[in-house]
Amino acid sequence: MNAVFVTGAAGFIGSHVVDRLLDLSVDVVGFDNLSTGFTAFLDSARSRPRFRFVEGDTLDREALTRAMAGCDVVFHLAANADVRFGTSHPHKDLEQNTIATFNVLEAMRANRVRRIAFSSTGSIYGEPEMIPTPEDAPFPIQTSLYGASKLGAEGLLNAYAFGFDFEVYIFRFVSILGERYTHGHVYDFFKKLLADPHRIEVLGNGRQRKSYLYVHDCIDAMLIAIKTACERVNIFNLGTEEYITVDDSLDCICRALGVNPQRHYTGGERGWIGDSPFILLDTKKVKSIGWAPKVSIREGVLKTLAYLQANQHLLERRS
Amino acid sequence: MNAVFVTGAAGFIGSHVVDRLLDLSVDVVGFDNLSTGFTAFLDSARSRPRFRFVEGDTLDREALTRAMAGCDVVFHLAANADVRFGTSHPHKDLEQNTIATFNVLEAMRANRVRRIAFSSTGSIYGEPEMIPTPEDAPFPIQTSLYGASKLGAEGLLNAYAFGFDFEVYIFRFVSILGERYTHGHVYDFFKKLLADPHRIEVLGNGRQRKSYLYVHDCIDAMLIAIKTACERVNIFNLGTEEYITVDDSLDCICRALGVNPQRHYTGGERGWIGDSPFILLDTKKVKSIGWAPKVSIREGVLKTLAYLQANQHLLERRS
Repeated sequence: MNAVFVTGAAGFIGSHVVDRLLDLSVDVVGFDNLSTGFTAFLDSARSRPRFRFVEGDTLDREALTRAMAGCDVVFHLAANADVRFGTSHPHKDLEQNTIATFNVLEAMRANRVRRIAFSSTGSIYGEPEMIPTPEDAPFPIQTSLYGASKLGAEGLLNAYAFGFDFEVYIFRFVSILGERYTHGHVYDFFKKLLADPHRIEVLGNGRQRKSYLYVHDCIDAMLIAIKTACERVNIFNLGTEEYITVDDSLDCICRALGVNPQRHYTGGERGWIGDSPFILLDTKKVKSIGWAPKVSIREGVLKTLAYLQANQHLLERRS
Repeated sequence: MNAVFVTGAAGFIGSHVVDRLLDLSVDVVGFDNLSTGFTAFLDSARSRPRFRFVEGDTLDREALTRAMAGCDVVFHLAANADVRFGTSHPHKDLEQNTIATFNVLEAMRANRVRRIAFSSTGSIYGEPEMIPTPEDAPFPIQTSLYGASKLGAEGLLNAYAFGFDFEVYIFRFVSILGERYTHGHVYDFFKKLLADPHRIEVLGNGRQRKSYLYVHDCIDAMLIAIKTACERVNIFNLGTEEYITVDDSLDCICRALGVNPQRHYTGGERGWIGDSPFILLDTKKVKSIGWAPKVSIREGVLKTLAYLQANQHLLERRS
């Protein structure tokens, strides 16, 4: 790993990956269209000589190919990361997750780059019967356009591994938490409670059981995997061994904020179409290569909340 | 099922589906861009008043949407069906299998059509450890661009089932044989033996174990499934309980043609990148709804050969 190309470099996870790679003294090219990323997340990176930023879109294969020249590893983190609104614009997941990944793979082929780390998702397991869900769980049925589009992308990575001798690292994330977090349940709850600390709407019945992982634990796992695993196709679930209910997570947040709102539930086992009522990934495989998370889900929630409290301008930009 | 929209209507399987549906006295709209289909396959259909043909491309979503108006079921059979040449043009599988399927689903949504039968593939299992391979085999690793592109399409169908209340029928075919067959091993061997009956090149070591299904058995299964199964997502493997080696199949063909060529093997367990050395699908699920194949693999090979002998003009059009 001498020069790494990072897509989604100005995003939540991408910008942390950039910083961590720079700490390892490798050259980094960050690529982002800034549609949901924040240039401020790259402030520290921009001050370092090994970093170069290219503003560009993963749907523009030529720009991608030009920007990638000279790199030897790709971290492909650019995505439409919001699983909730898939049915409002089904083309968005297909384009930004499946077709964009195809473009990244083609840009790699043009540049003779053969190693790629990819942010996939635990949503790919749909509503699995096997919980905790291992990487080789029974062939899943997709329940969201987001999951479907990431499945399409995973398939492409695998096919490139066999067809073009790529070495691929697929990471199936639970929801990631931490500094620079700009969407998801902590974000939504905090924003709602700022607007009205006395009453809050909770999607679903509040009993959905969810897994979260702290962003630096997530990046630790990716870096260890890339250093250690050497199959043609390397697939790892990334998560903790715990889960938390939506209600319990809201308890944490309310306690930290010193509020006690009335909760109004939209009802039903699922918060939205494609929401999985219980997500818990089996992480034996990634643990077997020497990784373990350092931050618990509750700590992760509180760190995220503290970050959002200190960076409330982030709440304004998004709907 | 009152009016059925068939994509790939002028193709091998599609044209048979059209004929069979017309026999059931439903209205049929056949859609095909004629890039690999043959209008002659629709000669009989064209003479029947319930049939209408629309020349159009599944990549043209507007044309697809217009042509689909008034239909209530879709058989989506248009595809890039050649698994062998994926690495020569990786975009072809993505476009013709994944993106085209997205367009079909969007055209359905625009027309409020909610039932779709889709031709997927046993290639989606990659090189499975579990043989015979059931529908809920462990989460597969794709080994071909063809398989990856069909996986992407399956994921989309599932997501539409959950997101938009579609009822989807996914059929994972082994290789299909029979009348109007215009590519695959019988086609290739026959063509080679016509050119030189004394010497033949065999891809791989000839010991690959393959499954085949006769086209009318395949269509029987699809029609029974659509009538019987009523889950949101219905997935069926379609194949026989037998397999045949490439060498044994070549024996059949040579005996029928009265030739005895010297065989030259290109070597290796696989005929090409992404070729699976052993394909045998578990078909318990489709049998449980009352289907059984009527034609054995050997009979299917011989019927296919007899058809090609009587229709040698089909050999000329393709490379």
